[in-house]
Amino acid sequence: MTKTNPGRFFEDYTIGQTIRHAVPRTVAEGERALYTALYPQRFAVASSDAFALECGLDGSPIDDLITFHTVFGKTVPDISLNAVANLGYAEGRFLQSVFPGDTLRSESEVIGLKQNSNGKSGVVWVRTTGLNQSDEPVLSYVRWVMVRKRDVDAPAPETVIPDLADVVPPEALIVPEGLTFDSYDFALAGEPHRAADYEIGERIDHVDGVTIEEAEHMLATRLWQNTAKVHFDATHREDGRRLIYGGHIISLARALSFNGLANAQMIAAINGGAHANPCFAGDTVRAWSEVLDRAQVAPGIAALRLRLVATRGAAFALRGEDGKYLPDVLLDLDYWALIPA
Amino acid sequence: MTKTNPGRFFEDYTIGQTIRHAVPRTVAEGERALYTALYPQRFAVASSDAFALECGLDGSPIDDLITFHTVFGKTVPDISLNAVANLGYAEGRFLQSVFPGDTLRSESEVIGLKQNSNGKSGVVWVRTTGLNQSDEPVLSYVRWVMVRKRDVDAPAPETVIPDLADVVPPEALIVPEGLTFDSYDFALAGEPHRAADYEIGERIDHVDGVTIEEAEHMLATRLWQNTAKVHFDATHREDGRRLIYGGHIISLARALSFNGLANAQMIAAINGGAHANPCFAGDTVRAWSEVLDRAQVAPGIAALRLRLVATRGAAFALRGEDGKYLPDVLLDLDYWALIPA
Amino acid sequence: MTKTNPGRFFEDYTIGQTIRHAVPRTVAEGERALYTALYPQRFAVASSDAFALECGLDGSPIDDLITFHTVFGKTVPDISLNAVANLGYAEGRFLQSVFPGDTLRSESEVIGLKQNSNGKSGVVWVRTTGLNQSDEPVLSYVRWVMVRKRDVDAPAPETVIPDLADVVPPEALIVPEGLTFDSYDFALAGEPHRAADYEIGERIDHVDGVTIEEAEHMLATRLWQNTAKVHFDATHREDGRRLIYGGHIISLARALSFNGLANAQMIAAINGGAHANPCFAGDTVRAWSEVLDRAQVAPGIAALRLRLVATRGAAFALRGEDGKYLPDVLLDLDYWALIPA
Repeated sequence: MTKTNPGRFFEDYTIGQTIRHAVPRTVAEGERALYTALYPQRFAVASSDAFALECGLDGSPIDDLITFHTVFGKTVPDISLNAVANLGYAEGRFLQSVFPGDTLRSESEVIGLKQNSNGKSGVVWVRTTGLNQSDEPVLSYVRWVMVRKRDVDAPAPETVIPDLADVVPPEALIVPEGLTFDSYDFALAGEPHRAADYEIGERIDHVDGVTIEEAEHMLATRLWQNTAKVHFDATHREDGRRLIYGGHIISLARALSFNGLANAQMIAAINGGAHANPCFAGDTVRAWSEVLDRAQVAPGIAALRLRLVATRGAAFALRGEDGKYLPDVLLDLDYWALIPA
Repeated sequence: MTKTNPGRFFEDYTIGQTIRHAVPRTVAEGERALYTALYPQRFAVASSDAFALECGLDGSPIDDLITFHTVFGKTVPDISLNAVANLGYAEGRFLQSVFPGDTLRSESEVIGLKQNSNGKSGVVWVRTTGLNQSDEPVLSYVRWVMVRKRDVDAPAPETVIPDLADVVPPEALIVPEGLTFDSYDFALAGEPHRAADYEIGERIDHVDGVTIEEAEHMLATRLWQNTAKVHFDATHREDGRRLIYGGHIISLARALSFNGLANAQMIAAINGGAHANPCFAGDTVRAWSEVLDRAQVAPGIAALRLRLVATRGAAFALRGEDGKYLPDVLLDLDYWALIPA
Repeated sequence: MTKTNPGRFFEDYTIGQTIRHAVPRTVAEGERALYTALYPQRFAVASSDAFALECGLDGSPIDDLITFHTVFGKTVPDISLNAVANLGYAEGRFLQSVFPGDTLRSESEVIGLKQNSNGKSGVVWVRTTGLNQSDEPVLSYVRWVMVRKRDVDAPAPETVIPDLADVVPPEALIVPEGLTFDSYDFALAGEPHRAADYEIGERIDHVDGVTIEEAEHMLATRLWQNTAKVHFDATHREDGRRLIYGGHIISLARALSFNGLANAQMIAAINGGAHANPCFAGDTVRAWSEVLDRAQVAPGIAALRLRLVATRGAAFALRGEDGKYLPDVLLDLDYWALIPA
């Protein structure tokens, strides 16, 4: 018997199956510093203990996307090692702040299965939960991927397609315990804009661009213990290029969005997302946002529903006349962020 | 109104104006480890809690240049986003040690203004103060930059040129609270040389060279939340090259200077400095020092005034016959370091 | 007198001589995070405080190879600055766990000397000990290098060749204080295999490959304060290439070996090792292991003696018909790892 992990194939999944993913991981000051070095991240709550204390928290929490990437990375060996495509995200909710020293692990439940008509692969839906060292959930999201079959003759499972919300309703957003923006210092945060200053439909070009290096995307991807070989092995693809982990683009775009959304301090939910085109080292990534919705979630605390688009081309580009993403578009992410009301 | 930061232009500055810069930042163990990975840094006080405790401190303080870069980085969006040139530094003094867990923020006061004769730009002098979470100053320095005007027809301000000291006088140097070199272990520190072993006029070739990579200078520059686009965006300059943050060269040269100045443990003051020529990835950087002065500052503690030169050419090169910096010279820094007397 | 370190030459070593190496170094959360970013490291004890607590430890210890590289790095300026070749390792034993916040320093005793017949160089054997801030030994190993003579006319020392064990006997392996695998969670650790599941002679292809970047090996090598210029200065070798620190390959191969040896949690001893061929940026490194021996070392705790081979070619390649390492083989390491019995 081989000792190494061959990954799961489509026929290895059954509805209701729960997978406890390896390896638990303690996240601390080092992960925070590396995140700041890897992305132009400047959101004040994630940068400063002093600022976070003023916001009623017990210190600066670990950036929400560190939590997302860490929880996601653990699922790769069980969910996407034999995946052909990463198809979507839904119902992502950040449930509790993570602080330096906390240990994260992940569990996934299989909630949907649909074999493709070609009989060679199928779509698997999982609901993944990130848990801390006290087994409290900190993050939950649904992800679906297309996975190859090991044996094309394996029988098709009964088709189950989960009923997923298009958007997390604002009343389901979790406000971190203790959070208040009552003594929020807009000058220190970097911009004067409150939720009310953003109009639905407003679009923001975040101006700056970052050219991606191989060393940087590999450092980032390893930091989340995501070991998918396409990201690291230049001999794996015929063109000798290493595919950049989609989460790297999410973090890069979110960090760039500081310029115009500096007060959108925390991500409360991920409503959906598409990695529209692959990205490679040498690409220069820019970002723009569109305000999709606005809601009050607690006294003094609002949520903005934002579309965040990463592109290696012009701002505000998204889809062509055929409705397909333009070739320069890398990411189309739909999320809720918390911001002073 | 645009939500993003257009930066300040020359006519936006007035004498006496105080700018509180975003974003406060907690520096900790992660920043220390990254600094060691980015620069060949081996000074014992900044490397070892045990060594620092023997020197009377409460543990190993954050490297002085981490403090400098962090405080400096915060000023970029307000001071140098529309800067044409970084003209100089003066009167830099490290006022208090920074320890892991401290939070740094920056404030600047405009102390000088002079419109250029072409009417298109002007020189702005600011005195920047780095403050910790208790609002105690940890660093103060003057910097002047040439900034473009938004509107060339805006009236020129009254010219005010601040009177700046050529050198911080030794009696103004701050010795960190508790610091003693009475039980200093020269073998563990790496070299036997005390202040008295250095002669004024002595020059030291620090021997080693480091070839710079894009990924490394970008990681470093982001770590200080310095977001000037010339450092990150390969499409910004016509030649497709990313300009390296001058502070990266300061840290690299200072780290290289360990070989010959291993006991020059801390930077007490920055008297002046010039980024003589731009530096790009692929350049191999070397460093040399010249002892400019020597002073006793406390019992058992001396200060060396040092010229630190970074070059991509031969050691001891500095200026040509025309008095201008030679093309290979990258940095000419004048600073005071504390060293066992 | 020059202030910089010229390194020691062969005639500078005498039998029994003890060298206290500079610079003591505190290792903490930042080093842990960087290690995870630099290598695809997923061993659970080194990743998770929660998992390590379940294993009876006081939290997640610093990865054994962080300790090895840190202790080793300090010896470079005194032992290998003028070395022509790194010839071997023996009798490496990890003696005590290192935890975040501990400070490491190194001492070496010269235990062997043999001048080469050409009179221009000689072999130096040292036993190096890593010590923590309480002067307790945490690591001990023997290393031998070929070092140039400064003066070819210097008299040859009496030849002393130390008697070194081919393998650390299992009864000499140190089990970290408190370690127990009684409530070991194989699912969280990532694989179900116990020591008894591995047969002597079994070989494992660890599957994945990693393409090496200049920025990554330099960040790693600096992190251990190893300043040998061949790793950093592209102008040093005639071919313009930077030689990769052998320890970078050790860490990379060990991390890759997780896939198949996920429960080989800790390195207890290094029996020997050879850096078979030089490695350069752009190489894609793979790893394979061979089970050499198995031993019970404590209730519930076994040790596997493993050969770990790093290669840029096919798995299981090692030596040619002439008995020499094949050109693609980079590392041949012989070590003991602790694993649930």
